[in-house]
Amino acid sequence: MRRVGIVGTGLVGGSVGLALRRAGVSVVGFDVDPAHLARALEIGAIDEAAATVGAAAAGADVVLVAIPVGHVADVVIQALDAGAAAVTDVGSVKAPIVAAVTGARAGLAERFVGGHPMAGSEQDGLDGADGDLFVGTTWVLTPTANTDMAAFTDIRALVGLVGAEVLAVSPEHHDALVAVVSHVPQLAATTLMDVAATRGEEHATLLRLAAGGFRDMTRIASGHPGIWPDICIANRDAIVTALDAYLEALERVRTLVTEGDRDGLLQLLERARTARRSLPRGIASGEMLAELRVPILDRPGSLAEVTTLAGGIGVNISDIEIAHSVEGGGGVLVLVIPARDADAFMGALTDLGYHPAKTELA
Amino acid sequence: MRRVGIVGTGLVGGSVGLALRRAGVSVVGFDVDPAHLARALEIGAIDEAAATVGAAAAGADVVLVAIPVGHVADVVIQALDAGAAAVTDVGSVKAPIVAAVTGARAGLAERFVGGHPMAGSEQDGLDGADGDLFVGTTWVLTPTANTDMAAFTDIRALVGLVGAEVLAVSPEHHDALVAVVSHVPQLAATTLMDVAATRGEEHATLLRLAAGGFRDMTRIASGHPGIWPDICIANRDAIVTALDAYLEALERVRTLVTEGDRDGLLQLLERARTARRSLPRGIASGEMLAELRVPILDRPGSLAEVTTLAGGIGVNISDIEIAHSVEGGGGVLVLVIPARDADAFMGALTDLGYHPAKTELA
Repeated sequence: MRRVGIVGTGLVGGSVGLALRRAGVSVVGFDVDPAHLARALEIGAIDEAAATVGAAAAGADVVLVAIPVGHVADVVIQALDAGAAAVTDVGSVKAPIVAAVTGARAGLAERFVGGHPMAGSEQDGLDGADGDLFVGTTWVLTPTANTDMAAFTDIRALVGLVGAEVLAVSPEHHDALVAVVSHVPQLAATTLMDVAATRGEEHATLLRLAAGGFRDMTRIASGHPGIWPDICIANRDAIVTALDAYLEALERVRTLVTEGDRDGLLQLLERARTARRSLPRGIASGEMLAELRVPILDRPGSLAEVTTLAGGIGVNISDIEIAHSVEGGGGVLVLVIPARDADAFMGALTDLGYHPAKTELA
Repeated sequence: MRRVGIVGTGLVGGSVGLALRRAGVSVVGFDVDPAHLARALEIGAIDEAAATVGAAAAGADVVLVAIPVGHVADVVIQALDAGAAAVTDVGSVKAPIVAAVTGARAGLAERFVGGHPMAGSEQDGLDGADGDLFVGTTWVLTPTANTDMAAFTDIRALVGLVGAEVLAVSPEHHDALVAVVSHVPQLAATTLMDVAATRGEEHATLLRLAAGGFRDMTRIASGHPGIWPDICIANRDAIVTALDAYLEALERVRTLVTEGDRDGLLQLLERARTARRSLPRGIASGEMLAELRVPILDRPGSLAEVTTLAGGIGVNISDIEIAHSVEGGGGVLVLVIPARDADAFMGALTDLGYHPAKTELA
């Protein structure tokens, strides 16, 4: 990878730029705010400031669109039209963006893969930019049956260069999952803070009783309000589904409290504690890896099928490449994944009719 | 204050012991677990290990009962029977404890004032004990109309020696408030974690998408499950009331999302952000103070009335003493509070028929 375009030089765009430049990649940036763009140049997050999206995208191996979710699809289409070899974004909702790009013009969406890093926010400013922001974090990519393999591998390589781990899932699956772990938690924290804050004359006393747990739980309510209405509208159905699951679960808790059901409460609390304590904390360094070689021949959509299968069982793709068959038409997908996940993943691939081969790596 | 008894040498009891000994107070400890008691002696949290609750309480100016909420009332009564001049506790629920002590025998409850420090947990072990654990934090006291003034001032002095700020509220008001800022948040976080964790085959993927916000919000779900069934049962009615307010507010949020109400969502998010950012962070050092002198004559229950009035409007009581009238029967309550709160508090006192006088302190 020689040249990357970054559209939107905020926290995410700037941090990616710093990491890529450190890795020897040339970075061309664009931002609608000239002051932000100048600042990105000043701190070394980009090599060169472009005057338009098209200028940042022309000749780029990959363009990263790191702007608020409501504007992503338009800018992605501009970058594709300008001839970028591959385009990705960092928006918090994926299916509507993928659908908008796919619907814009036939053939365009093949070079676009939606993305969502699980650190930073596209709304945050450049001040906190850090080339290590994504090290050890998860970065979702959402390939589809139409995704071009070369575009995917280049975007996957960009994610690797910033130190993040790829998790590939379908756009719709991504949106359902983030509704549960991000959007509904945001609304739940916001609502909790609001209930506590709107109790009239008790307000001052109440807030003086807010100890560490309440502070932790409501911290995300102190973030940027501006980003959330767009997300709620873009991901409405998945959010309502997840919110309903949360409301139903809270009603069950209400019953446990009303009935004084000590055992039921304890079971719930213990189950949640176990789950909280087993939240993954990024890949362990020095972990054993395995290489899987998966012949994909001429099955259309097999890149998305294989990678989202990995995502569906939580398997991190440490590396990926396509070894093209000399006869043309398909080839071999070479995946590097944690060795401990290899057998489960092999079994799942076999169930789908693939014939993977495994090599343990030192 | 010369001698304090501490029953329960866990995190809270041990931390109070360390702070008091540093201030020159002699501390006698008791714990049902001899190993915990020996360890408290070893780390210097107590001067002396007692063999029984009675031995720790006999001759004590104040006894602090720092054990799980289900056992507090019995131990408080034992300490009062053993002749402690004043007894307080650190349980997370107050009204049932105060009621149990009051109902045990006439005259007993006058020397008991319920307490609840908003830092640490009576369930945590001694390992994290720290003489500075409570510095700058809020410590609730719940005097009643029957509370003995000398007992209250000694307990208030103990809280001052550990560096915490007193907020006085009635037991029932305390329980309603902590339902909102502690108990319901705990249940909300636990439920959110449980909903995320019980989505079957999506589990691994989902948890890999859990970024900082989700981690913050569910952190309290990783705490001690054992403490919560007792709290939920002891504070059932207040918890159900607060949970219903939360459920109703979430239903309104669901409507905003369903209707794509961008303005309504933004208003909610901005209101919550403002409230979250204005969460108090402890008293500012160097803050101007004022002294209020409040003649209380022979009005029964005026100590509780005046101090819980301060609590009701969020005013920290930095110091309190009773200047007894030479004629006997009542006297003057001398309160030190932040100067910025003095006028509001004076007005509230005047409304109740008191005649306070203010002196600004340097």
